[in-house]
Parts: sequence; C-alpha cells; structure tokens
Amino acid sequence: MGLNFLPIGGVGEIGMNNMVLAWNGRRYLIDCGAKFPGETSRFAELVLPDLGWLRANKASFDGIVITHGHEDHIGALPFVARELQVPIYASPFSYALARRRLDEHNVHGLDFRPMEPKAGGGIGEFIRPPERPELGFQLIRVTHSIPDAAALLIDTPIGRVLHTGDFKVDPEPIDGKLFDTEAFRRIGDEGVLLMMSDSTNAQVPGRTASERSVIVEIEAQVRAWPGRVVISQFASNLHRLRGLEEVALATGRRLCLVGRSFKTYTDIARAHGLQTVNPDLLLDPETVERADPKTVILVLTGSQGERRAALWKAANGEHPQVKLGKHDLVMMSSRVIPGNEREIYAMFNDIRRRGATVLHPKAAGIHTSGHARQDELTDMIRLVRPKAFVPVHGEYAFLLDHEALAKKAGVERTLVIEDGEEFEVSPDGELSRVASRVLETHYLDGTVTGSPEELGFEDRRRMFHNGVLTVVAELSPGKPGRFAPDVELQSAGLFTAGDKHLDVVLQELLDTLEAIPRESSDDAVEGTIVSVVKRYFKRTVGKKPLVLVFIRRVERPGESERQGGTAKKVAT
Amino acid sequence: MGLNFLPIGGVGEIGMNNMVLAWNGRRYLIDCGAKFPGETSRFAELVLPDLGWLRANKASFDGIVITHGHEDHIGALPFVARELQVPIYASPFSYALARRRLDEHNVHGLDFRPMEPKAGGGIGEFIRPPERPELGFQLIRVTHSIPDAAALLIDTPIGRVLHTGDFKVDPEPIDGKLFDTEAFRRIGDEGVLLMMSDSTNAQVPGRTASERSVIVEIEAQVRAWPGRVVISQFASNLHRLRGLEEVALATGRRLCLVGRSFKTYTDIARAHGLQTVNPDLLLDPETVERADPKTVILVLTGSQGERRAALWKAANGEHPQVKLGKHDLVMMSSRVIPGNEREIYAMFNDIRRRGATVLHPKAAGIHTSGHARQDELTDMIRLVRPKAFVPVHGEYAFLLDHEALAKKAGVERTLVIEDGEEFEVSPDGELSRVASRVLETHYLDGTVTGSPEELGFEDRRRMFHNGVLTVVAELSPGKPGRFAPDVELQSAGLFTAGDKHLDVVLQELLDTLEAIPRESSDDAVEGTIVSVVKRYFKRTVGKKPLVLVFIRRVERPGESERQGGTAKKVAT
Repeated sequence: MGLNFLPIGGVGEIGMNNMVLAWNGRRYLIDCGAKFPGETSRFAELVLPDLGWLRANKASFDGIVITHGHEDHIGALPFVARELQVPIYASPFSYALARRRLDEHNVHGLDFRPMEPKAGGGIGEFIRPPERPELGFQLIRVTHSIPDAAALLIDTPIGRVLHTGDFKVDPEPIDGKLFDTEAFRRIGDEGVLLMMSDSTNAQVPGRTASERSVIVEIEAQVRAWPGRVVISQFASNLHRLRGLEEVALATGRRLCLVGRSFKTYTDIARAHGLQTVNPDLLLDPETVERADPKTVILVLTGSQGERRAALWKAANGEHPQVKLGKHDLVMMSSRVIPGNEREIYAMFNDIRRRGATVLHPKAAGIHTSGHARQDELTDMIRLVRPKAFVPVHGEYAFLLDHEALAKKAGVERTLVIEDGEEFEVSPDGELSRVASRVLETHYLDGTVTGSPEELGFEDRRRMFHNGVLTVVAELSPGKPGRFAPDVELQSAGLFTAGDKHLDVVLQELLDTLEAIPRESSDDAVEGTIVSVVKRYFKRTVGKKPLVLVFIRRVERPGESERQGGTAKKVAT
Repeated sequence: MGLNFLPIGGVGEIGMNNMVLAWNGRRYLIDCGAKFPGETSRFAELVLPDLGWLRANKASFDGIVITHGHEDHIGALPFVARELQVPIYASPFSYALARRRLDEHNVHGLDFRPMEPKAGGGIGEFIRPPERPELGFQLIRVTHSIPDAAALLIDTPIGRVLHTGDFKVDPEPIDGKLFDTEAFRRIGDEGVLLMMSDSTNAQVPGRTASERSVIVEIEAQVRAWPGRVVISQFASNLHRLRGLEEVALATGRRLCLVGRSFKTYTDIARAHGLQTVNPDLLLDPETVERADPKTVILVLTGSQGERRAALWKAANGEHPQVKLGKHDLVMMSSRVIPGNEREIYAMFNDIRRRGATVLHPKAAGIHTSGHARQDELTDMIRLVRPKAFVPVHGEYAFLLDHEALAKKAGVERTLVIEDGEEFEVSPDGELSRVASRVLETHYLDGTVTGSPEELGFEDRRRMFHNGVLTVVAELSPGKPGRFAPDVELQSAGLFTAGDKHLDVVLQELLDTLEAIPRESSDDAVEGTIVSVVKRYFKRTVGKKPLVLVFIRRVERPGESERQGGTAKKVAT
C-alpha cells in the first residue's frame, strides 16, 4: 500500500497529462488532460486516457485535482468526471475553463471544491479532503502561458510531494504575478519527499525567454510595418493577449480579435477578476476591412493550420470578415507543434498567395514557450531539494535528460517511468516500480468515447488502405448436391478499372460457388468468398479489401428469380 | 507556338519534379519525379503527376530528359514512360538508377540515349534529338547529394535555356568532382535566354556547408565515442558514404552497411566506374554483433522513421542482425523532412529506450543539405546572367523569395508560376502566362495507378472517418400496397455500443420500409434507407457512415422465409 503514483497519460508522451496518486489504495487523479489526434487517429476528435481502466477502478477514486486550465490538463474531464463522479479540486478560473468543456458534453452536478493558488512566499493551509483528511493539497503559483497556473503540493503522512504542473520561471510576467520562488524555497526548507517536474523543454539549454521580451520584439515589428499587422496565437494565452494590448496602445492601433475562443477566454477571465483587454480598444471584426490598415492589429486563432480556424479561412480567402492582402504582415506567435508542420507551412504559402508578407513561423523573438528550459529546471530542483525525483510531461528522451539534470543537481534517488508504470515512494524517498499496467488509449469520436476496438479503429484503417467489397450471395439448390448461386457486389474505395474487375471477380465467385458442396456451412461459404475476393484483388491491384459477406439461403429450387448465375453489380 | 514551359509537378511544392518543355507544340519532359504520400494519401505508395493529362497528350511528346537519379526526379518514370513510349536522355548512372525502378514495374524496351554530364569548363556538343534537331540538350556537372547530378542546358532556335536541376556549390566535394563554375560563366558569357533554378533552400541565408565539413564533424564524434557508432543516412548519398569510409579508415573502424538499398546503390555506382566503399573495409551484418563495438561504424537506412527500414527495426528490437544497446551512439546524418517529425522523434525515443545514446536529429554539423542556399543561388544567377528567370523546385513561399534574389541580382524579367501554369518565353526574354491547366494528382496504389476518383479516394476517407454500414433489404409483398421487408445489416469501423445501435436502426428500417408504398422505385427505397441510417448514427454517435444498400425484390407473397420483420445482423 503506502504512497504510489501511476501516470495514465503525459509521461513518455507530450500532452494528455493524467497522474494517479494512491495513498493506501485510495486514489486521486492529478490533472485530466486530453491530446489532439495524430495521423493514425485523425478521424477522432480527442485522444483520452484509458476510460475503461478508470471505470473499472471507479470505487477507489476520491477526487480529481487540476493544476491549470490548458486542454492537456482538463480536456478529458467531461469523460473522466462522468465515469468517476468524484469531487474536483481546482482554482475557480481553471474550473471555469473546465466547466465550458463539461457543459459542451452535458456533464453536470459535480462537486467543485475551489482551491486558490497560494502566492507571496507563504504556503498556507492545506485543503484536506473530508474523505481523506490525512492528505492535503495546496496550489502554489508558477508562471506559465495561462493565468492561474500552479504547482501542486501534496501533504501525506509520510512526507510532502511536489508536482510542478507546467511552469517556467518568468522574471517579467505580463500580469505582474511572479513565480513564487520564495514559496518553493520554503517548501524545500521544510522538506520534500518527492518532486515530479515538467520535462517539456528538458532538452533545451538555457532559459526560456520572458513574455516581456516577446512583447518588446512584437512591438518593434509592428512599429516597422506601415500596414496592417496580423498575429496568430492560442486564445488561452491571455498574457500574450494583454501584451498585444500594450503594443496596440504604444503604437496607436486597435486590436481586433477574430475566432470564437478569444471571446470565451476573455469572458471567463473578466468574470474571475483577471485584467483583460480593454473593450474600448477592440475593433469589431465586421468593420475591420473598412479600417485604415495601419491602425489595426488583427489577432487570429488557428496558428497550427487547423482547418475551419480563423487564420486558415483568411489564408484561403474563405473568411467572411478578414481579407488578407499585400498591406498585411502576418506573424505566428506560437510554437510549431511537431506533426503540424505541413499544415502550417501550407497555410503560410496560401497567405503569401494572397500577397501578404509573412514573418517565418520560426522567426526569432516573437514567441516564447510556457515551459522551463534546462537552467530553470535546475533552479527548481535546487530550490526544492527533494529526496526523490521523477520527471513527467515529456517524451521518453526528455525524461532521461531531465533525470540527468536532477542527478547533476544532487538528487540521489531518481526514476524514469512511463505511462502505465506504477511506482512507490518509501518514507525515506526510495523509489520502486511496483506494477506495469496495460493501458488502452481511448478516443472521443463523433459524440461517443471508446477504445480502438469499440470504435472499429482497425477496420477503418484497413478500409482507408484497401477499400471494402460487399458480397451478397443467394444460394438456392442447383445441380445435384450443388448450389445455384446468385451474387451481387458493391465496392467502395477500391480500384475496379471501371467495373471490369467486379465483372471478373463476380464470375470467379459464381464458378466457385457452383462447384462447392451444398452441405457447406455458412462459415465455409463465407470463407471461400473472402478468399476468392482477396486473392483476386491482391493479384490484380495489390490490395486486400475488407470483405463483408451476406449469405442468403433459399431452400426450394426455382424459388429465386435470379438463380443460376445471373447477377448485377454496383460500384460506388 | 514558340517556346513554352509547363510544370506538372515540383513548382509550388517540394518533390515530384516534372517540367514540360514545348517548342512549337512538340514536347519534352524534363525530369520525371514522384513524391511520397502525405497524411491524406498515406494509403498510396507514391504520388505521381497527372498521368491522364500525359496520356491525352502522348502524341505531342518526343522525349524525357533526366537531370539526376533522385526519386523526386526519376520516381514516376515507370508510369510515365509506359504512357509516353519516348526516348529517354540521361547519364548512364542516372539511367541505371531509373532502370531499377523500371524493372520493378516491368517497363522494358525503352530507347535510352546516354548523355554524359560535361565538366571542366567546356560546354561541348549538344545532343540533338533526331526527331527535332533544332533543339539540343547538354548536361553540365553540379554538386549535389548524389553522383552525376547536372544542370540541363537547352539550345533552342530563339536562345538557350538553363534548368539548374538540383544543386549546391560545394567547394570540397568528397569525390573531387567540382561544381563547374567555369562552364556556367561561359554559358553566361554566351548568353542565356531563361534560367530556371532550384528553390529548395531559397529561404535559408548564407551557404550550405560542404560535405567535407560534415565528414570532419562526424569523425570528431566518432573519435570521442568509446563504443559503437550508428549512423543513418539516405542510401543514395554515395558521397556521404565515401566520407564515412574515410572516417572509418581514420579511426580504425570498419563499416557495416545495413539496409538493402545500400547494396543497390553501391553496386550501380561500381558498375559505372564510380569509386565506392572498399569491400575489404566492410563488415558483414551477420557478424556485427560479435565485433568489438569500438571497431564498428554501422550505417543504416531509415532516417525518416519509416517502418520496416533498418533503423526503425533496430529501434524496436525487431532487427535480425542489429541489437542496439548502451554502447551505441546513434546519429542521423540526413534532414528531418517536414511531416516526418513525429515518426522520427518516436523512433529516437525508442532508441533511447534501448539504452543507446542519441545525438539529436537536428544536431549541428553532422548533416548538410544538397541544395544551394541564398548566397549560392545569387552566385549562380550572377554567373549565368539570364534575360529571364523562373524559380522552380519549391513551395510557393520559396519561389517568391528566390524571385526576390534574382531581382536583387539584376534580372529584370522574372515570373513565379506554379504547377499547371504554362508560360511562354519570347526571343527577348519576355515571360507570359499562356494557360492554366487543371492537373489531377495520380497515385501508385498497391500495384495500380489512378486518379483519386479511380482509386475511390473520397470513399476511403469517408470510411476512415465514419465507417461503413451495409444494408440488404429483401422486399416481398406485405399488407395491401405495402412491403413485407426483411433486413440484414453489417457494419465495419462504426461504434455500435455492442450491437445495440444495430438492433435499433434495424427496427427503424423495418418500420420505415413497412410504411412506404409498394410502387416505390429501388432508388426511392435506397434513398429512404440511407437517410434513416445516416440520421440515426448522426443523432446517436455523431457520425455519418458510408451506406451500401442492396435491394432484393421477391414478387410472390410468402416466398421469403424471413419476411415480415424478422432479421439478423452481423457486426464486425
């Protein structure tokens, strides 16, 4: 029993951060993130942690704790909360962001337990769950690319555990809310058993540039450009947006925010007392094309080249309000997420086809990461001085490099684990792998969630590669001991050489079915049909389509009107 | 009529270089490249130019001219040569590489007209096609990442045209065969009407590093590593391979080449008198695991993370000969092709899971591009001093930036066109767009080629996203003026909640079919079925599956054994 942790997402991968804490068998989930589908699962809307495992272990969970409101920390909440039905601990702002997702999926009636991030060097009172008062949770403010980001300090009977959440150490945050160095030092002074820390940038030397430096660079670019400026950024990056407001004020321009999610985020921020863009400075997208270009900074969603997002529509001339042209300077103030390169560069080519000027997506200085680089990671380790260290949030290579930083900073006990590997921490900080769980990725697909098997993942992939052929075989009695078959075919996604292949395979099927014994079982007949079809298409077009077979037996001879080998076929 | 050019690939995109030259209506194809499928066409083996357009215009073609043997210049040859049946002009080495592809696809009996690249400052005699002696072709040696790379000089009655092919200006080529600066200067002195030039690196400032500098850096890495060194590179980069031979000699190691294509390339190189790796220095992959690690440099194919390639197999512990472990230093000596990032990084994580050390895929100095950067491009323009300039081989943004370099270097007449846009060059170098052709990308899919429509592209994509549902509806006479329907269903790739959805939609279909008039046409019945199914699944799972419908009418009442609403269903 004792104190265990099991990552069910986000460790050995980027995104979908989900860490299970277990104290004497009672569990809490730290963060509840989703990630966006990669190529092989592009049909799905979201990639989710193993809902089947969570469902099976529902009775052991006492709560979900959220460190901040990014999708890779809250995106799976609607689906997980529906399964677990446990209290949710989060800051009111983070929960408001999660609430939006919960509403979208009609998940209501949750027990929300607000937890404000502590700042200003103090640690404060732990929030002790009534169900499990020997545990305590406390959020400690960090700097990151969304307001209310926090590390999570967990008090347990055998010592304290610090989970950094996502963080960087920004000396000049736009909102003036500083990384709470003093609190982390105090936590360190008081003793930390285990620290788990954000490895996103563990391979990158140095320090992440400050938000302030980005705003300074963007302001310089805006000043130098005589026309309209178009910037794409994530709507969740409210700090960046406030920085752009400063740029607009300093350069005598107005901001025009295009893309629904800007309104969502700024509304929620305002409702939670966070300073956000002054409405007087905003230009209505409906009127932006009539405004003098040199008085405007357009801010658009869609930096990753997502179809249907504002920038993609504008790049393709399909945006109802925004028309890009040669007076526009377009810059992308967000990272190029690996895997999105083709879409992003295709979009930037389209922007240039409209005559606009583009600052290269990787141009220096106009974006900074929300994640600590090596020197900041080392600083954090040195502040906290944990007995034991486990890197989280990152690909396997990042975890290894983060572990090396911890060792170099003097932490003796370290462990690299990945999703599904459960480890135990002893009271003196010894780390040991205790179980390896086979987890199954789930997906939100259309409006339902399921495992790859439930969603027919493998069949879809096969049909994408090989197409499908459906065979209806009606079998009535023919020559003694034989069938008189009638066959219909329909194919989709299969090369048929203008039906020629369907004609030939149909004849092969009729010949084959006429020759097999009448006592053949349905399974045997189906097997024969599948093998004739697959062999034929493998030989002629190099593909093995998925074959769907319907066998319809007609017992009395002469009953069917289509017996004896006449047939029709339809190809889509 | 006059002199026209029409790119049918490679202009406005990277890869698949195909440029049509037309002189008074007679055509030659310059290069005949394919490219690898991106995400949306991943089921295909290769992306090809518009074979339908080539087929329709077959009678106007007199030849195909190849600048060098990379896949993006020869990969479509089997399919295009089969259509056009025209003479092929190429260097014997480049043709031998093409021959391998032609053999694979059983294309024989072509008329090959060898054309050695000229070097050493002379231009030499033009090869004049007997069919069209007023035209002349001459290859001029350049430096690139494969032997026998050349620019193509075309003599026409109204002036000379230089197509640079792919090139860089490497002052220290490994094989000692220098970029022929003198020849390009002479061509410039004698006058060039039009130059078309490689834009691959037109957005990158400075000069591409020399092959020599890469070899020096790799040698330093090898010297510093006490164990085995593992390098992945493209098998076609025979210069790099010879450089690795030098490194092996200098460090007292042997080379072990793993991956079939190394043998192909080195065999062809040897057969064409090109110096290649000394067999005495080679270690048999069968014995490599028994060799002292510090005496070995393993060279593997599969730098792009391709499944089934040597490095991927080794990374996943599936390679029969190569077992990676903690004594291995793995480095990737080739570029990260945009779009392959996820696969490459996933593979490098797997390599680290085996305990091996990895030099980051983008680590400095261990790879250099085969394409000229901005300063080299400018040098080329200044050597050749063409009257007119058209950038080729690149995304749209690259073409624009290359055009800007040409303008800056003093070329007055420039034009940026993309695939499908035909332009004319007048005798004084005026450039004008003369036609815009709608081209259709073709694919090699399995063993056949076809257009997206012929290959059922759209249906496959729909099935990948939404799955398929097949409905067999047998309609016999029921109540007066109504049907007695019998329905069977099969689905694939569709969420059915453990058949529950199939049960419900089946009942909906039976109810609907019982209620419609018996005089309904097959089309009307099918339309009804499709709409019931799509509405049901849209409502319940948010998906619209592809629906395949079979309608079977049984005229005499009581004939079917399954009438009146009994039914069975099967879900895969």
